[in-house]
Amino acid sequence: MPKTYEPLQSVKWENGELVLLDQTKLPETTDYMTLTTVKQVWDAIERLNVRGAPAIGITAAYGVYVAVRKSEAETSEALLEEVKKQAAYLATSRPTAVNLFWALDRMTATARRAQAEGQTPEQMKEMLLTEAQRIQKEDEEVCRSIGEYALTLFEDGMGVLTHCNAGGLATAKYGTATAPMYLAHEKGWRLKVFADETRPVLQGARLTAYELQQAGIDVTLICDNMAAKVMGNGWVQAVIVGTDRVAANGDVANKIGTYGLAVLAKAHNIPFYVAAPLSSIDLGTPTGEQIPIEEREADEIIRGLGRQVAPADIKVYNPAFDVTPNEYVTAVITEKGIVRAPYTENLRRLFGQK
Amino acid sequence: MPKTYEPLQSVKWENGELVLLDQTKLPETTDYMTLTTVKQVWDAIERLNVRGAPAIGITAAYGVYVAVRKSEAETSEALLEEVKKQAAYLATSRPTAVNLFWALDRMTATARRAQAEGQTPEQMKEMLLTEAQRIQKEDEEVCRSIGEYALTLFEDGMGVLTHCNAGGLATAKYGTATAPMYLAHEKGWRLKVFADETRPVLQGARLTAYELQQAGIDVTLICDNMAAKVMGNGWVQAVIVGTDRVAANGDVANKIGTYGLAVLAKAHNIPFYVAAPLSSIDLGTPTGEQIPIEEREADEIIRGLGRQVAPADIKVYNPAFDVTPNEYVTAVITEKGIVRAPYTENLRRLFGQK
Repeated sequence: MPKTYEPLQSVKWENGELVLLDQTKLPETTDYMTLTTVKQVWDAIERLNVRGAPAIGITAAYGVYVAVRKSEAETSEALLEEVKKQAAYLATSRPTAVNLFWALDRMTATARRAQAEGQTPEQMKEMLLTEAQRIQKEDEEVCRSIGEYALTLFEDGMGVLTHCNAGGLATAKYGTATAPMYLAHEKGWRLKVFADETRPVLQGARLTAYELQQAGIDVTLICDNMAAKVMGNGWVQAVIVGTDRVAANGDVANKIGTYGLAVLAKAHNIPFYVAAPLSSIDLGTPTGEQIPIEEREADEIIRGLGRQVAPADIKVYNPAFDVTPNEYVTAVITEKGIVRAPYTENLRRLFGQK
Repeated sequence: MPKTYEPLQSVKWENGELVLLDQTKLPETTDYMTLTTVKQVWDAIERLNVRGAPAIGITAAYGVYVAVRKSEAETSEALLEEVKKQAAYLATSRPTAVNLFWALDRMTATARRAQAEGQTPEQMKEMLLTEAQRIQKEDEEVCRSIGEYALTLFEDGMGVLTHCNAGGLATAKYGTATAPMYLAHEKGWRLKVFADETRPVLQGARLTAYELQQAGIDVTLICDNMAAKVMGNGWVQAVIVGTDRVAANGDVANKIGTYGLAVLAKAHNIPFYVAAPLSSIDLGTPTGEQIPIEEREADEIIRGLGRQVAPADIKVYNPAFDVTPNEYVTAVITEKGIVRAPYTENLRRLFGQK
């Protein structure tokens, strides 16, 4: 029997405390940690107890409140200075995380507004908590909206294949690619989900399979090279993945393996969907060719799984991402609706541009 | 610098002794073991120190000679009885290995012929050693011939992608899919080989990458889900794989992941070749649909790499093989020549059937 029927929440504000699901212990152990000091929050971000850009941003936002909630500052000016100092400290926990800086900026701006409005220190603290909760709620609503649009493309009983973890663990709730799976489950639909293990870092095995199983969703783990066979067996009626960046022409950068899946989906006449919050669509990037592809170290493949599985000094090619050309993308699913080709025109329209 | 420039031999008859490359220690350690008793040979087969159907057959054939070389039987009748007994014993080492039984039968038939011809026990022993060496030599010639035909499809400087291990380690020498790589290397050609790691058992990482590297061939290890990107990068001009069985219509059963590669190759206009000794072509199997696909245990995916990488009780689909329909196969390369579509007609012709 599945243990719960709700999506796991990786970040929670519960009984007046910040509670994180400790993602470093997954999938073996589901363990929550309560963070009561800003140092603990900094450590949790730095040590990857929390991962996924939206989840990191939300954690940091609560972190600002945790940092100052017991402050004895007597003026709102003094408290604002503390907020700025603590936000600057938290910003050093993961130096390249855009969502982290964005969330901390929102928290600092809130403190500044409270001070400008002449609020008391206690009122400012309340506003900070409210703002952190709002950041979390907004992310949840984006994911839920993506899920609702995606669900209009799904049917009860359908087989759905996904890659990597664009899941609830990385966001406030629901995830992006996983959102329609959770919403289908809420409706009582029976989707049959296939999760690629996603070598080399195995986010599909460690995270996606785990979180869907915890929610009681029918999920089957496969190795990446089994996706073609699962499609050939007739078991998959849709592929849905997340994205790191969608270019202006609809080319999609995502975890390595996504491009191959898209080609296989097309060969099997299976629609290929990309769940993309507006924040991941970058009209400033004309095509996928301008998206840099990070190459990672050889050891991730040679030794990443606990024991050495290849010659120690073997040459390795380890690109972290690939780009799926727009002609393989059946639709991009955003919180504002479903976008189809021609992408250059229709993505611009989504942002109110001509 | 590569350590040697010759294909590794997994089974050798060297200075009057049977010497095996200990494949259980790969890829960390290249270690040879000298087997002087039939019990050692039985153990080596049973414990997978030697693997690959042809290599197992060759080892068992030498094992029969090792078993009786010091026999004090005074008549050829008595020695024939010993040969039968030892062959029956060796046959119990891997109960489902067809090549094993076939090689042991050849050895027993040789002893029977020696006895019928009135040879002395010492002459019979010599004939047994010669027969084992002949079995090894024939396998080497089959592989070399496949390699020579395949090489007519290759060019100096080309990128070649392979999957799993249809390599020299499994055969007397050269392997099947790897044979043109070794022969190209002998000619001084510079092929650039990409080896899929081949989840879940990682034969590509552990064996193919290892043996090509040992021979000084330019080999790059990738995860299975990177093959599409490598093709998209324009780095691959041919895919070549081995096979477990080719059906009469040219459908090809091989390690899981082969079918997906074939679809990707077609989408990138890259030829897809199958190296297939005649012994793997089964005209008695009309199409791939009649080939049973073994499903293996979940733990191979969940825990196969040294640590648990997915929830312990997750549902898994783990087919060991897939079938590539003949329309994806550019050519089947055998020791008797290159066969192209229409396969039903042309494979029959290969066996002298109309």
